[in-house]
Amino acid sequence: MTSGIPPDLKEKVAELLVVRCSAHACDSQRDYPQWELANNELQQLLQAGVGGVILFGGSIVELEYRCRTLRKWSTKPLLLCADIEEGLGQRFAGGSWFAPPMAISNIYSKDSTKAIQLAENYGHSIGTQARRCGLNWVLAPVCDVNTNPDNPVINVRAWGSECEVVADLTSAFIKGLASQRVLSCAKHYPGHGDTEIDSHLDLPFLNHNIQRLRELELIPFQAAITHGVNSVMTGHLLLNQIDAGNIATFSDYLISEILRKQMGFQGLIVTDALVMKAITDRYGPGEAAVKAFSAGVDLILMPESPLEAINAICLALMSGRIPLDRLHQALTRRREALLIVQNASDSTNDPFFDFQDQEFESLQDRALVEELINTSIEVRNPVSIQNNNHGLNLIRVDSVLSSTTLSKQAPAIRIPKIAGYKSLITHDMSIKPWKDNFAEPIDLTNFQHGSIFLQLFIRGNPFHAKNFSQEPWVEVVNQLQKEELLSGLAVYGSPYIWNLLLDVLDQSLPAVYSPAQTNEAQAKVLSLLFPSIDQSQYAHNPLLQEFTD
Amino acid sequence: MTSGIPPDLKEKVAELLVVRCSAHACDSQRDYPQWELANNELQQLLQAGVGGVILFGGSIVELEYRCRTLRKWSTKPLLLCADIEEGLGQRFAGGSWFAPPMAISNIYSKDSTKAIQLAENYGHSIGTQARRCGLNWVLAPVCDVNTNPDNPVINVRAWGSECEVVADLTSAFIKGLASQRVLSCAKHYPGHGDTEIDSHLDLPFLNHNIQRLRELELIPFQAAITHGVNSVMTGHLLLNQIDAGNIATFSDYLISEILRKQMGFQGLIVTDALVMKAITDRYGPGEAAVKAFSAGVDLILMPESPLEAINAICLALMSGRIPLDRLHQALTRRREALLIVQNASDSTNDPFFDFQDQEFESLQDRALVEELINTSIEVRNPVSIQNNNHGLNLIRVDSVLSSTTLSKQAPAIRIPKIAGYKSLITHDMSIKPWKDNFAEPIDLTNFQHGSIFLQLFIRGNPFHAKNFSQEPWVEVVNQLQKEELLSGLAVYGSPYIWNLLLDVLDQSLPAVYSPAQTNEAQAKVLSLLFPSIDQSQYAHNPLLQEFTD
Repeated sequence: MTSGIPPDLKEKVAELLVVRCSAHACDSQRDYPQWELANNELQQLLQAGVGGVILFGGSIVELEYRCRTLRKWSTKPLLLCADIEEGLGQRFAGGSWFAPPMAISNIYSKDSTKAIQLAENYGHSIGTQARRCGLNWVLAPVCDVNTNPDNPVINVRAWGSECEVVADLTSAFIKGLASQRVLSCAKHYPGHGDTEIDSHLDLPFLNHNIQRLRELELIPFQAAITHGVNSVMTGHLLLNQIDAGNIATFSDYLISEILRKQMGFQGLIVTDALVMKAITDRYGPGEAAVKAFSAGVDLILMPESPLEAINAICLALMSGRIPLDRLHQALTRRREALLIVQNASDSTNDPFFDFQDQEFESLQDRALVEELINTSIEVRNPVSIQNNNHGLNLIRVDSVLSSTTLSKQAPAIRIPKIAGYKSLITHDMSIKPWKDNFAEPIDLTNFQHGSIFLQLFIRGNPFHAKNFSQEPWVEVVNQLQKEELLSGLAVYGSPYIWNLLLDVLDQSLPAVYSPAQTNEAQAKVLSLLFPSIDQSQYAHNPLLQEFTD
Repeated sequence: MTSGIPPDLKEKVAELLVVRCSAHACDSQRDYPQWELANNELQQLLQAGVGGVILFGGSIVELEYRCRTLRKWSTKPLLLCADIEEGLGQRFAGGSWFAPPMAISNIYSKDSTKAIQLAENYGHSIGTQARRCGLNWVLAPVCDVNTNPDNPVINVRAWGSECEVVADLTSAFIKGLASQRVLSCAKHYPGHGDTEIDSHLDLPFLNHNIQRLRELELIPFQAAITHGVNSVMTGHLLLNQIDAGNIATFSDYLISEILRKQMGFQGLIVTDALVMKAITDRYGPGEAAVKAFSAGVDLILMPESPLEAINAICLALMSGRIPLDRLHQALTRRREALLIVQNASDSTNDPFFDFQDQEFESLQDRALVEELINTSIEVRNPVSIQNNNHGLNLIRVDSVLSSTTLSKQAPAIRIPKIAGYKSLITHDMSIKPWKDNFAEPIDLTNFQHGSIFLQLFIRGNPFHAKNFSQEPWVEVVNQLQKEELLSGLAVYGSPYIWNLLLDVLDQSLPAVYSPAQTNEAQAKVLSLLFPSIDQSQYAHNPLLQEFTD
């Protein structure tokens, strides 16, 4: 059935795919081997003409090496992208990891000019670091307006909860990226901010009509288009009132009519990952790709099966189900996008950056990391936590395995340890601290220690948000305060949780909030809560004696 | 006081140091920033003439890049080493990680010829992979005879518990390494096998006299010398009856008299890391280096302060406390060692291996990984564990943070999940599962599930062995069997624990032991316990849906 497809058609259609690989060099190192192509498959697909790769995992040295490898394996210029909304360091160790965009939105309310400048710097830094590693396309900014505080998957990734703020900041981000000749991507059209469902897990529904979208969700996308955004990513959302039969990614009306014609977008339209459950629960791998392409999408991101996607699109073009014009348009847009970046990263095998001669993170990058942390931290009470040799450092995270938040050297563990606090982590695979009592939810018999310092790492993480929504941390704070056991609180991530907890917190309790969860953010939060511990001197503290594993 | 030291003396003494750095390119990526030099310090020390570096952490791509960087930063040939007793993969992701040496010792009792061949292949593989990454010195084999089953730090790292077996296997390992022109290192002279104390934490005492050493501990070291081992590492041990005033690393008698004169060793003698507590609790950074060098050691590994070590040794040479001859001897031995390896890895900046063209792990390496796992696994009962939708997969590990044993993709979690088992991990920072009852130690109210599949990851890990010795797993197995709650057991690591548990295990209970703890070992163990789960097909199992973080 597929043998009748002309090879040159196959090769052209293959250009429109963006497949996934790890930035690690070896197959055995893949963090998600079920989703990341093995080297031999990857090499075959590139030789068959696949035109884009999205990279995950590894370090910046590995990423730079990997991008050179991919270019060597391919016969044509590639689109190389990554999901680095918050900096290279979010995905690739060694890059800068900035506080999440929501941190800048909070600054906007006090000083919009400063916030806009920070957003431009944010894009500039990501663009520079991405280009240095060999990437030419950054899958950011998130243009969703986080109007729903319970949003499990957008949350702090959004540039705000008001459409004008999001529009101003994302436009500045796009400007910063463009200055480094790296392609930008506004996502997730037509707006994923008002959902309560994680589309990684299921299909979110939205009841908004087109009028509401125009007044709110579409504002940042329209601004992004005005400011020259290079691509738009569709979200896997069903808008009942607008196109009840098609999710946005498959909606001819939303894509070809609204986004292309009415909003006038001439750049690349790319699907969100087609391996997400919102899609795979409902459509086969070939059909999903065809439906997206047919609706007006140009690029197919992470198809469940690249070969099935290519064949199905070819057959749809050959049968006339999709006009051939669509293929030519998409290929032209892709070529034009590559022209924009080709001066910055050519297809030679030269390294883009020499890690031997220069620190990868520039002084400006470092200053931006620090400034975003410092300006976004909120201190409830400038009272320090006392050292306590029987203290308990109770940490809540989504997951500890391969965690980038809690590593061996995480200040969240090391600094309280010097202050006498023993660490206890509750996570998705730990014995739960709960007992069956809603008003006093935590089982204190688990803790033979004195006062408890509570650190909550909570933000909208794909796949994990449900875990949190079942945990009664407001009630825990009430319970611990009643028992006079709470010595301090640190919240990293969600401002919504922080505000809920503020409502019940004792006025006298030391408490700090940071939108960022990184090691740098932890160090800053804990320098406020434990000011007597000199962090620069903790290097050789005898309590931190381990030096090998 | 140190300004009067002639610069050329300083530079010569600096050659004898082996300092520590991370294989990661960026300072922010160091796993142990308090022990791993920052790039600017490292560059300064290499420019000052420091002649050796020990590398930790990162991936093979990063290691190869880092070795090139170090050579570029130095003006002279460097000794570049790593603690890769069980393969590159033990420290550097992407390299092969073999079953620990103790696995081969078990094979020896059945087929000594085969075991000796495996040991040679083991050395050959490590040598090839080390050289490909730019290393020229492997800190192995461990020549300690693990006569003490409670040894917290040697344990499965040893090539056996009988001196002849250890001698045969380590000699074969040395032969394999030498074939790849990579330097070997017999450790920890005069034998760390009969200790109950981890010298990372405190100073172990040994009551053996010299006669006993000659009959047991020294046998493998003597064999290693006969087989041309290039270096010997001293252990931080106090042998009361032999040199009550000096730990072995500082013992002129043990080093210059026994090792050099009586045993006739002409190669490099190197200290174990001088940052270990057995040393730092008792001696300052300068004095420790002087005492070792004075006793006859050539190279100083991981001095607490490199500059203080250089200055103190210079002053001791200038004052006549140490004769200048010692310096010349040490420098000559170092030069001779470098001559052996210089054909294999020269000092140019060319990459040693092109990860783009070839898989790093050869087919022979992969076959050896598999063979060692397959031949060392012990199956108590070829009965499979039933799938159970209310099962509990209870995992015991030392630590989950930055764990290489339990990653996101660990089969130990993923395969039982497909069989219906929910994972629960107990580790050094988890809520403990214990209640205060020695005969029934585990608190079953923590577990609302049905049958329990128990997986114990236990081996001699530096710093962590004490955790385990306080955990009553034999009693847990008794308790779970009495309650008819135990559905199966997997032990990864220590054969001693496995044997203890075998004594109490029900005959009918499915149970498997593997000396290796790696992902490959887990996959093999679980294919025996859950034969109905097709691991090659589990890639797209809907239960394993997560594809991002």
